[in-house]
Amino acid sequence: MSTEKRRWEERVKDKIKERKGIFTTPSGIVLERLYTPEDVKGIDYERDIGYPGEYPFTRGIQPTMYRGRLWTMRQYAGFGTAEETNKRFKYLLEQGQTGLSVAFDLPTQMGYDSDHPMSQGEVGRVGVAIDSLEDMEILFDGIPLDEVSTSMTINATASMLLAMYMVTAEKQGVSPDKIQGTVQNDLLKEFIARGTYIFPPEPSLKITIDIMEYCQDNIPKWNPISISGYHMREAGCTAIQEVAFTLADAIEYLNWAKARGLNIEKIAERVSFFFAVHNNFLEEVAKFRAARRLWARIMRNRFNVKSDRACMLRFHSQTSGVTLTAQQPRNNIIRVTIQALAAVLGGTQSLHTNSFDEALALPSEEAATIALRTQQIIAYESGVADTIDPLAGSYAVEALTSKIEEEASKYIEEIDKRGGMIRCIEEGYINREIDEASYRYQLEVENKERIIVGVNEFCNVSDEPVEILKIDPRIEELKRERLKELRKKRDNERVRVDLKRLEEAARANENIMPYIVEAVRDYATIGEMTMALEKVYGRFGQRSKKNVIG
Amino acid sequence: MSTEKRRWEERVKDKIKERKGIFTTPSGIVLERLYTPEDVKGIDYERDIGYPGEYPFTRGIQPTMYRGRLWTMRQYAGFGTAEETNKRFKYLLEQGQTGLSVAFDLPTQMGYDSDHPMSQGEVGRVGVAIDSLEDMEILFDGIPLDEVSTSMTINATASMLLAMYMVTAEKQGVSPDKIQGTVQNDLLKEFIARGTYIFPPEPSLKITIDIMEYCQDNIPKWNPISISGYHMREAGCTAIQEVAFTLADAIEYLNWAKARGLNIEKIAERVSFFFAVHNNFLEEVAKFRAARRLWARIMRNRFNVKSDRACMLRFHSQTSGVTLTAQQPRNNIIRVTIQALAAVLGGTQSLHTNSFDEALALPSEEAATIALRTQQIIAYESGVADTIDPLAGSYAVEALTSKIEEEASKYIEEIDKRGGMIRCIEEGYINREIDEASYRYQLEVENKERIIVGVNEFCNVSDEPVEILKIDPRIEELKRERLKELRKKRDNERVRVDLKRLEEAARANENIMPYIVEAVRDYATIGEMTMALEKVYGRFGQRSKKNVIG
Repeated sequence: MSTEKRRWEERVKDKIKERKGIFTTPSGIVLERLYTPEDVKGIDYERDIGYPGEYPFTRGIQPTMYRGRLWTMRQYAGFGTAEETNKRFKYLLEQGQTGLSVAFDLPTQMGYDSDHPMSQGEVGRVGVAIDSLEDMEILFDGIPLDEVSTSMTINATASMLLAMYMVTAEKQGVSPDKIQGTVQNDLLKEFIARGTYIFPPEPSLKITIDIMEYCQDNIPKWNPISISGYHMREAGCTAIQEVAFTLADAIEYLNWAKARGLNIEKIAERVSFFFAVHNNFLEEVAKFRAARRLWARIMRNRFNVKSDRACMLRFHSQTSGVTLTAQQPRNNIIRVTIQALAAVLGGTQSLHTNSFDEALALPSEEAATIALRTQQIIAYESGVADTIDPLAGSYAVEALTSKIEEEASKYIEEIDKRGGMIRCIEEGYINREIDEASYRYQLEVENKERIIVGVNEFCNVSDEPVEILKIDPRIEELKRERLKELRKKRDNERVRVDLKRLEEAARANENIMPYIVEAVRDYATIGEMTMALEKVYGRFGQRSKKNVIG
Repeated sequence: MSTEKRRWEERVKDKIKERKGIFTTPSGIVLERLYTPEDVKGIDYERDIGYPGEYPFTRGIQPTMYRGRLWTMRQYAGFGTAEETNKRFKYLLEQGQTGLSVAFDLPTQMGYDSDHPMSQGEVGRVGVAIDSLEDMEILFDGIPLDEVSTSMTINATASMLLAMYMVTAEKQGVSPDKIQGTVQNDLLKEFIARGTYIFPPEPSLKITIDIMEYCQDNIPKWNPISISGYHMREAGCTAIQEVAFTLADAIEYLNWAKARGLNIEKIAERVSFFFAVHNNFLEEVAKFRAARRLWARIMRNRFNVKSDRACMLRFHSQTSGVTLTAQQPRNNIIRVTIQALAAVLGGTQSLHTNSFDEALALPSEEAATIALRTQQIIAYESGVADTIDPLAGSYAVEALTSKIEEEASKYIEEIDKRGGMIRCIEEGYINREIDEASYRYQLEVENKERIIVGVNEFCNVSDEPVEILKIDPRIEELKRERLKELRKKRDNERVRVDLKRLEEAARANENIMPYIVEAVRDYATIGEMTMALEKVYGRFGQRSKKNVIG
């Protein structure tokens, strides 16, 4: 500690009686009583903080950030049939949303058609049910795909949904080089935390790289992957682990892409990321800034990329589902506001704000609207978008930024030492780390070292009832009917041939994307295409039909 | 501009295309695209920022700030009868509120009893109706006045309400040196913005000083004044003007206290302040930090006080009523969260968070609870209370802090030049400045240079109806009955003598407080005591019965 700060501590030490013996962030970082210039002495402005739009991008990836263009307001939405979700999309766009984000139901994510026995009770429940190109055409009916960008939370079946989206655009007269968006396509975190994988790890990653390659050649403005820390964070990892494991996943993907012979410099420009944003305001702001700097340094030092562009960490963020409470649900509007503000002050490119009723059900229209309004009020009324990275220089925020970068780096070193991310997932290291963090946090909540308003303190309130969205129970029947008709009217012989070719391509270790696109054009269903691939790759492990967060 | 920053601007200048030609805060401060170390070069850490609990208090007035004790969560509440408000107080305390704040109805504020013709339609409407000690006893029934601190938004009749509070405490067995709280007692801002004055400026200020003197001798832990920028801000002044005019008012009061021969060093320790907190996050955080530093410098340089304690700016803050919208009322939860976070990051000692339905009615229980929960979530879940003044050092926040201090100082100089605050109020200078600022802002809203979500943009939503609180229309009758009984059962001869003595004391230019206390003990009413004083001072000017914000 510096002389001056130590002198102050000396002067006030008799007056100090604090609420806790030690204050820590949820990541376990010990917070200083006071941060002063002494705490940031080791930080060199030009080297470590720098300028927006320039390496190491601590202050943001664009030179003008939100003064140039606000972040994309992209609300994750989807439920029931394609018709219903289409209606919600149009409603959100009318309300000023600036990007789309599709939630798919579990059968779509797991490669089962709506009429498959495994789909029972799940059709249209946690997202929209898509079986074939037909549904996709309905989903985007009247929405010009050259004007909107679309993010799709889809992984094991990402190839199929991306193909459907591309063909839907074509049918609208929009060529593939004009469409913009993202498929999540991040299988590593499925094995760690989210659980909607279909094939074993190796073929899963092989398909991930197929999509990257296909996009580079055919859909140049598409982000072929969104490497996601969100689900690991929701599963209980800390902010530091979120940065570390997400970037370690990214390193793994880039290694695979390199092995395929892809141009890393070019691929890196289209790799995107997805983070959570939780309640701890300072830690979250610092986390985003740290993640940007660390990724830039990894790209330059580990992958030796030359262009600044390839060093940019571009990310979507979403406020945290697990921090929302079923108790006193409207309190969640407060939490989402704090989280969204942190994401914006952290320089996110795109943001989903959760609806206050998400701990109870899928968002009602009222709740979805308030969630979007949260972003608009931050954008237009709070003024934080009017100057770039306004918390830069804050002794506390800069000290935390450095600390998070440092601690995340240590994790990445450890993962390297253990033979890389796939190895670490297989031997259970990542899940053990997440479980430990999650357990520590739960213990803190139980001991009331962490107070959660309405949960372990300030509970005795009978809140007004909240109207929740109910999914029409007839949807399964409707979808079964539609599939029956589809199989009557399409050219089933062509579909048979398409599927055979897809299977053969998989067996021959070719890039499967072109074959998927052909099958999609002929209205092959998700279930059929998955089955064709399953013949080659097999189905991996067991997973439950539990609710999955996007 | 520095060489480095200029070089960056050069490098990126072709990429720059911004949403606006110029970005300003609502105070009209031009926001830089980017703040860097160059923008805070003139700031000396030890001299200008320093350490919490020490001069110039930029980082807060306590050495540990919220690590020691959280701010007081003090929700302004009051409606209907004393019984109803007592119930709401107890509810709020049960929910974890840590201080009380009383809203009085207009008749109580204007010195009319509930049965006075001028009171018609206003009894219990914007606050609780208090006529005599009897009501006060009911208001605090079952609330131990040695454990809670109470703020009372009362000005022209502050002497009477304070006396009632003191006597109520005595009857609970709590001596005056044990009670803690604040009376607003700030008449200057009544003449500028709020309008609930009774007597002309000179006697009004004389009574203000009477209360200061009385408290110093008799109620040592009481804050005899809360100098308020809130109402000027609500009337449309800017953040800079709010700081300037509030501190200029304070200078005026201290000059009067000095003229009375009071010990400024001692008085200053019990002067408190009251600010608004609006949406512009960075400007508001900076405003509080600037106000603390500027006040400390004024106390040291203008009033030559020696002790650090006398240089502390202690303040309550309240989120802004005028920024809340009747449209889409639940969006106000978002605004209040942003504002409350700014107040906490600005180091407030005490905070009221508005209820989302305040643009429609008095807070319902649900809305009042969510408002309190906002503070609790910030206190316990956001982590911002766990390190002191966490935004210190931020280039943007420090630059804005200096700018606001500088601009507010200029205003104070101008006020000095024009002969001081009373002179400036009388000649209309202050109101002209406020009106101009308010007009400019309205123009910006009309031109959509400032977007207000749900008002001039993002409007087309039919929001769910909000249940509002309705005041029982029989309250006037009830109060009339109670007054009738009171006048039957009290010793009317003693009251007559008390009032006569009060009148004589006023005429003799004595401190009226001891006479008020005696009259209160004998259950003289507000209306009777006001009338006695009116005989000496007269009633000043015209004012409307419009709704007044606390």
